[in-house]
Amino acid sequence: MIIPMECGEPVRQVEVRPGMTAGALVDALGRAGAYNGGALARAVDLWERMLTDPEAVRFFGLAGAMVPAGMGGIVADLLERGHIDVLVSTGANLTHDVIEAIGCAHYRGTADCSDVALRHDEINRIYDVFLPNAAFVRFEEFMQEAFAALPEGSVLSIQELLAHLGSRLETGILATAARKGVPVYCPAIQDSMIGLQYWLFAQTHRVTIDAFRDMPGLLDRCFGAERAGAFLVGGGVPKNYILQSMLMTENGFAYAVQLTGDRPDLGGLSGATLDEARSWGKLAEGAEAVTVYADATITFPLMAAAVLERLEAQHG
Amino acid sequence: MIIPMECGEPVRQVEVRPGMTAGALVDALGRAGAYNGGALARAVDLWERMLTDPEAVRFFGLAGAMVPAGMGGIVADLLERGHIDVLVSTGANLTHDVIEAIGCAHYRGTADCSDVALRHDEINRIYDVFLPNAAFVRFEEFMQEAFAALPEGSVLSIQELLAHLGSRLETGILATAARKGVPVYCPAIQDSMIGLQYWLFAQTHRVTIDAFRDMPGLLDRCFGAERAGAFLVGGGVPKNYILQSMLMTENGFAYAVQLTGDRPDLGGLSGATLDEARSWGKLAEGAEAVTVYADATITFPLMAAAVLERLEAQHG
Amino acid sequence: MIIPMECGEPVRQVEVRPGMTAGALVDALGRAGAYNGGALARAVDLWERMLTDPEAVRFFGLAGAMVPAGMGGIVADLLERGHIDVLVSTGANLTHDVIEAIGCAHYRGTADCSDVALRHDEINRIYDVFLPNAAFVRFEEFMQEAFAALPEGSVLSIQELLAHLGSRLETGILATAARKGVPVYCPAIQDSMIGLQYWLFAQTHRVTIDAFRDMPGLLDRCFGAERAGAFLVGGGVPKNYILQSMLMTENGFAYAVQLTGDRPDLGGLSGATLDEARSWGKLAEGAEAVTVYADATITFPLMAAAVLERLEAQHG
Amino acid sequence: MIIPMECGEPVRQVEVRPGMTAGALVDALGRAGAYNGGALARAVDLWERMLTDPEAVRFFGLAGAMVPAGMGGIVADLLERGHIDVLVSTGANLTHDVIEAIGCAHYRGTADCSDVALRHDEINRIYDVFLPNAAFVRFEEFMQEAFAALPEGSVLSIQELLAHLGSRLETGILATAARKGVPVYCPAIQDSMIGLQYWLFAQTHRVTIDAFRDMPGLLDRCFGAERAGAFLVGGGVPKNYILQSMLMTENGFAYAVQLTGDRPDLGGLSGATLDEARSWGKLAEGAEAVTVYADATITFPLMAAAVLERLEAQHG
Repeated sequence: MIIPMECGEPVRQVEVRPGMTAGALVDALGRAGAYNGGALARAVDLWERMLTDPEAVRFFGLAGAMVPAGMGGIVADLLERGHIDVLVSTGANLTHDVIEAIGCAHYRGTADCSDVALRHDEINRIYDVFLPNAAFVRFEEFMQEAFAALPEGSVLSIQELLAHLGSRLETGILATAARKGVPVYCPAIQDSMIGLQYWLFAQTHRVTIDAFRDMPGLLDRCFGAERAGAFLVGGGVPKNYILQSMLMTENGFAYAVQLTGDRPDLGGLSGATLDEARSWGKLAEGAEAVTVYADATITFPLMAAAVLERLEAQHG
Repeated sequence: MIIPMECGEPVRQVEVRPGMTAGALVDALGRAGAYNGGALARAVDLWERMLTDPEAVRFFGLAGAMVPAGMGGIVADLLERGHIDVLVSTGANLTHDVIEAIGCAHYRGTADCSDVALRHDEINRIYDVFLPNAAFVRFEEFMQEAFAALPEGSVLSIQELLAHLGSRLETGILATAARKGVPVYCPAIQDSMIGLQYWLFAQTHRVTIDAFRDMPGLLDRCFGAERAGAFLVGGGVPKNYILQSMLMTENGFAYAVQLTGDRPDLGGLSGATLDEARSWGKLAEGAEAVTVYADATITFPLMAAAVLERLEAQHG
Repeated sequence: MIIPMECGEPVRQVEVRPGMTAGALVDALGRAGAYNGGALARAVDLWERMLTDPEAVRFFGLAGAMVPAGMGGIVADLLERGHIDVLVSTGANLTHDVIEAIGCAHYRGTADCSDVALRHDEINRIYDVFLPNAAFVRFEEFMQEAFAALPEGSVLSIQELLAHLGSRLETGILATAARKGVPVYCPAIQDSMIGLQYWLFAQTHRVTIDAFRDMPGLLDRCFGAERAGAFLVGGGVPKNYILQSMLMTENGFAYAVQLTGDRPDLGGLSGATLDEARSWGKLAEGAEAVTVYADATITFPLMAAAVLERLEAQHG
Repeated sequence: MIIPMECGEPVRQVEVRPGMTAGALVDALGRAGAYNGGALARAVDLWERMLTDPEAVRFFGLAGAMVPAGMGGIVADLLERGHIDVLVSTGANLTHDVIEAIGCAHYRGTADCSDVALRHDEINRIYDVFLPNAAFVRFEEFMQEAFAALPEGSVLSIQELLAHLGSRLETGILATAARKGVPVYCPAIQDSMIGLQYWLFAQTHRVTIDAFRDMPGLLDRCFGAERAGAFLVGGGVPKNYILQSMLMTENGFAYAVQLTGDRPDLGGLSGATLDEARSWGKLAEGAEAVTVYADATITFPLMAAAVLERLEAQHG
């Protein structure tokens, strides 16, 4: 077979074998190398480099309703293994993380149902996941108790508030991050059930959450990083907050991986290509970057299994 | 033609005529009534009812990079005409609104270009819109001056900070909202160039922005509303912050229109159906709600032209 | 305002006015010029040039379930006005065109319903359009009668078969095309209710439909065209069949407009960029081409109204 | 933990382990059970039932540019293992299957390139896959030779033509199908490079390809099936042709799995839910059906690896 110079490597037709590991499957996707399957394999390569670069600070962005879908376990595991240095999340993911950590569950439901009937049954729906209102009763107890333990008259940053919550939990993202000393940022904390609980609490207490108090610490971390990498599950506030944080430094991110189901042509940040971020200097000119366009409930577990397999093989 | 009872109205094949108005076109889409074209027509019907209900409080959510795409002019116009009572925006849209208001422009570029070359030319890209760095120089001057006018040691809410900015501008969303007394909320203000400017300012000044200080006012507005309507351009924080604000009241929203290019099956809030919001009580059980799945740079102008045409016809 | 040389024209914030025409709205989208709204305006510009180029042969591709959604009326109108020289359609659109032409209707239903209940009610669903089985009873009568009029033992091309059907109808796409002498191609005719009816007919008759008999005529048209333009609603077989037809000539298409809701990164032809078609030579190197990513039930009527307004203004 | 009766099973947070098999990963997705990750796991369950039902006839639909992306190898393997009884494909996939089978290759390229430069280099692009023109030179030789071996004056069905091609090849989809006696249907064969080659051939030869000659055999297969299952990669003609083929029988499909990146709300068949097919009777009322919305270059290999692992475990 003559391979023209201008072309790359040949596409190898995928061979699947019964019992193949997730890592072997991703290797096969890489040898095929096309569309989002190929991008996924390249993203695993890049993630591996990011995680094995001893000079890199690893940022992790968590958007989309990932915890209700069972993806929080992987984030907690990555925190436990030391693969996340800075976490930025939506308020919703942290709300659902608390709900799981206090012993409540989300349930496998269906998207094909009457939401009015669910309302009558006191069940909240997140696509095909069900969450009974009862969970929010327990959540309210936990949150109000946790908030009440804050010193009256104090001023906290959002990250400090979240570390306080994490210190009172034993499992999950906030708990693991607190135990490992990983800061968790959540710029739009008001926009969540945690925020509504805080509104309740603030009707009778005076603890100030300073919206901007987290920025100096986060930006110092950026200024101090030799190299920085970003792994972004979904877009939204976490993606932008992570990417903009490097804007003030002379460097941009050196590594970036993005898992999203959105599309670039609508102009929104969530679907924007990582190349676009180069024009702003959020990514370094020569940064390695891969976007995988697909549902992260498929791509994130597959990629995590594959990258852990590779890291273990290296250390084996 | 015999129309079976079980079926609805017949689909009328669309007839377009040279010179037809936007309103007449939307009426034709309504008589066809299928897919997102039909949804768009039903959404205009619903928006009209929302705007002519004298008891309704009208919330407006603005996400996606809409101002760089020229959609901010419509929002300012709706504010001017009194069709928005509460505005919730991303920080990015407000940043770009300030940029336009201080006399800088966004440019029609292309998505098909080298972002590294753009970086060298000091041009930032938002899909196919270009924004020269020079605009951010002027933006910094304006912001630092505006922030410097805040009393040292004071504590403000985000909405108060934005009203302060709006009072120093003459055109655009923030200026019009300030002049009309419409509150503008932006829970994730840190996650924007306004946030980065504030970080700069806060290195030498002490003005506290209390992240939660806006919630009592917003929720009081919700408790006081006889009926509430939401018009949501894009999802993100504005969508959730608006919808969750009614969660604490006994009512949910009575009207809701959503323009989004996202999809429901990924589980994220931005693409979630409005029906899902009924299970949570964010929408009232019997609420009227329509989602139009398409790029809002097409649907929003068409719908705005059509609804203004109808309102004028009513008052003519 | 200083406009940097490297940038294009400034984005003009959209102003909508009550009573503005579809054409004026599209002009405003063009002055904003961003994302798919901007693309739509550029596509109208291009379509206008294609329709006013006296040397151009105009191909029109019709995929997606457009006739059930009421978009067939616009296609018939474009045929009537002489704006389509060659039409390529899916079998489904032609099936539904016949159904409308014989006096049956599609109905505005809902996508939120029980399909099992619909089955019991003998109603077929196309997203939110309902079609009672009764229509297929009449359809069968019409088709069997029409087929029976074909000379036993004859050999026809698919285009000849469709022209025969069109000659027996008075309104709609097939009828108008037949009256105007515009050939209608449908490579996958078997894949439709027309195909199933033919299977029924062929159990007792012997008329051969030669799958390839249309290609010489189509390709001769391509060889003879000074310039060729393609307007593609949806992708599928019509898009590829039109684009590949120019592959054998030395030219590619000089103009191409594509309306699609699909996305490029999945590798499928329906969502592929028109640039990709340049590498194959389906489009000429310097061809003008615009894709509008959105639901065609919104974009197609808006664009048709705008382009007809412009053509009338020229001739006014 | 108290599980409310109305809810289903709890969402189990996903645990990934280094070295876990593809099957174990899919099992973990199934225990989480949400969004498309959950759908993928349910689809593997269903595919397994379909493949182990001794009474079921298994239809397989292949649309999208899957062979250039390396997915053809899996289809050939499924044919080899006896997991496909009837195959319906687009012409493009068969064209690229022939290209691989005659020893040419597709190459891993990039979507971020100049298509005009590619044109000058005689390279054709399919998203990020490159295919040199040289391959089409060899393809032409093979096709013309193969066509020339057909008896002058004969009449063939498309399936017979494809079986003839398959009998002259040694590897790939057509070759394996021919060797295993699995019929391959391709209603829109004209709409492909095979079609263009046939047009060339037909300029000097007289072999008639009867467009409808395949339908009796296909429909007899449907009438004779105790139960039928459909596995659909992509939509397009293969999806509809497979689903409509059961329409004439009293049963519909009993099993259906669909992998697609399209969306339902645009009304097109490719993104349509399988529920919609119940209203038509294409699926039986009680049919088991799952759609996985994501790029098939990720989902198809993962699902194939998982289902083969399960089948081997059963027989182990």
